[in-house]
Amino acid sequence: MRVVKLLEDRIREDGQVLGADVLKVDNFLNHQIDPDLMTALGEEFHRRFADAPLTKILTVESSGIAPALATGMAFHVPVVFARKHKSLTLKDDLYTATVYSFTKKTSNNVSISKKFLSADDNVLIIDDFLANGQAVEGLIEIIAQAGATLSGVGIVIEKSFQKGRALLDERQIKVESLARIKEFKDGQVIFEED
Amino acid sequence: MRVVKLLEDRIREDGQVLGADVLKVDNFLNHQIDPDLMTALGEEFHRRFADAPLTKILTVESSGIAPALATGMAFHVPVVFARKHKSLTLKDDLYTATVYSFTKKTSNNVSISKKFLSADDNVLIIDDFLANGQAVEGLIEIIAQAGATLSGVGIVIEKSFQKGRALLDERQIKVESLARIKEFKDGQVIFEED
Repeated sequence: MRVVKLLEDRIREDGQVLGADVLKVDNFLNHQIDPDLMTALGEEFHRRFADAPLTKILTVESSGIAPALATGMAFHVPVVFARKHKSLTLKDDLYTATVYSFTKKTSNNVSISKKFLSADDNVLIIDDFLANGQAVEGLIEIIAQAGATLSGVGIVIEKSFQKGRALLDERQIKVESLARIKEFKDGQVIFEED
Repeated sequence: MRVVKLLEDRIREDGQVLGADVLKVDNFLNHQIDPDLMTALGEEFHRRFADAPLTKILTVESSGIAPALATGMAFHVPVVFARKHKSLTLKDDLYTATVYSFTKKTSNNVSISKKFLSADDNVLIIDDFLANGQAVEGLIEIIAQAGATLSGVGIVIEKSFQKGRALLDERQIKVESLARIKEFKDGQVIFEED
C-alpha cells in the first residue's frame, strides 16, 4: 500500500487542519494538483475496483475532476462530471439532484446530461473528499434516475468521524477510501490505521 | 500529427455546431471526458512546449482541468486551476482578474491563491477553447500580478475566426492550438488546414 503511505505523508506534510473538521489540501488535490500523485491514486482505484465491469466514472466539478480523470485513464473508460448550479429549473435533458453543503450551509443542484448515463452503464463514483456524504448521495440519486448500476465509490480522503461513510456502509455500497482520517487532534491528522 | 487528426475527426463526428459560433463538444471534452484522448493531447502539448523550462501549468475550472492535468502528467509539473466566482471582494491572499464571457454575457472573477504562483515560476496556460480570449487574458493578468514568466498558451480547440488568437499573436505570445477552426459552414466544421 505504497500509495496510501504516499498520500498520508502528503496530508501530514501539506495538509492544514482548520477548526474541528476541516482539512485544507489545496496544494496537491483541489487547487494546485500534483499530477504524479493523481496518476498513482488512479492506478490504486483501478486495482481496488478491477473486477467491476465499469463503463463510466462519475464525479462532481471541480475538485473531483482530477482524481476521476486519473481513474478513467487507468480504466480507459469515459469520465462524466456533474455540474453544480444554483438554479432549480428542471430540464428534460438532465438528471438532477440537490446537494446540501454542511461547510457552506447552502444547497446546490448537481446535474448531468441524460446523453451520458443510461441503464446500460456500470458506474464508479470518484470524489476527493467524503465527509457527510451529500455529494456522493446526489450522484447515487442521479445513477438511480438513469437506472444505471453502481459498482462502488472511490474516495481520496475520508473523514471517518463524519457521517458519510456510515451512510454508505448502511446501504451496503462498496467504498474504498485511500486515506481514512479518524480525527483531528491538536491540529494534527490521526489516520484510522495509526 | 496523428493527434491533431484524431481530435479533428472527433470534432467532426461528435461536435455539435449551434448557431454561428458555438461548438458543443460535451461528449469528449467538457462534460463527458475521453481520458485516452486527454492523454494524447497532453503528450502533444508536451512535444510542442518541450523546450520551455516550465514549473507550473495554469488553467481555469472546470473544463480546463482535464487537458491541463493531462499536460501536467506529461511534464511532471504541478497544475493550478483558477477558481471562478461572482464576488468582487478582493482578498490579500489571492491574485484576481475579471473575465467577461461573451457567450453568457456576464463577468466572473477568476482567482488563484498567492501560495501557488511566484516570480520564480515559468508557466504554460492550457485551456479547452480559445474564442475571444477573455479567460486566457485573465490568466495572463494573474501571471503578471505574480511577476511570473509566461512560456506559452496551449489550446485544445481554437475558433480562429474570433478575436482571441489575434490578440495573443499581437502580444507575441506563443500559442499552440491543436484544432484550429476557420469557420462553421452549413452546420459543418471547417478547419484551417482544410
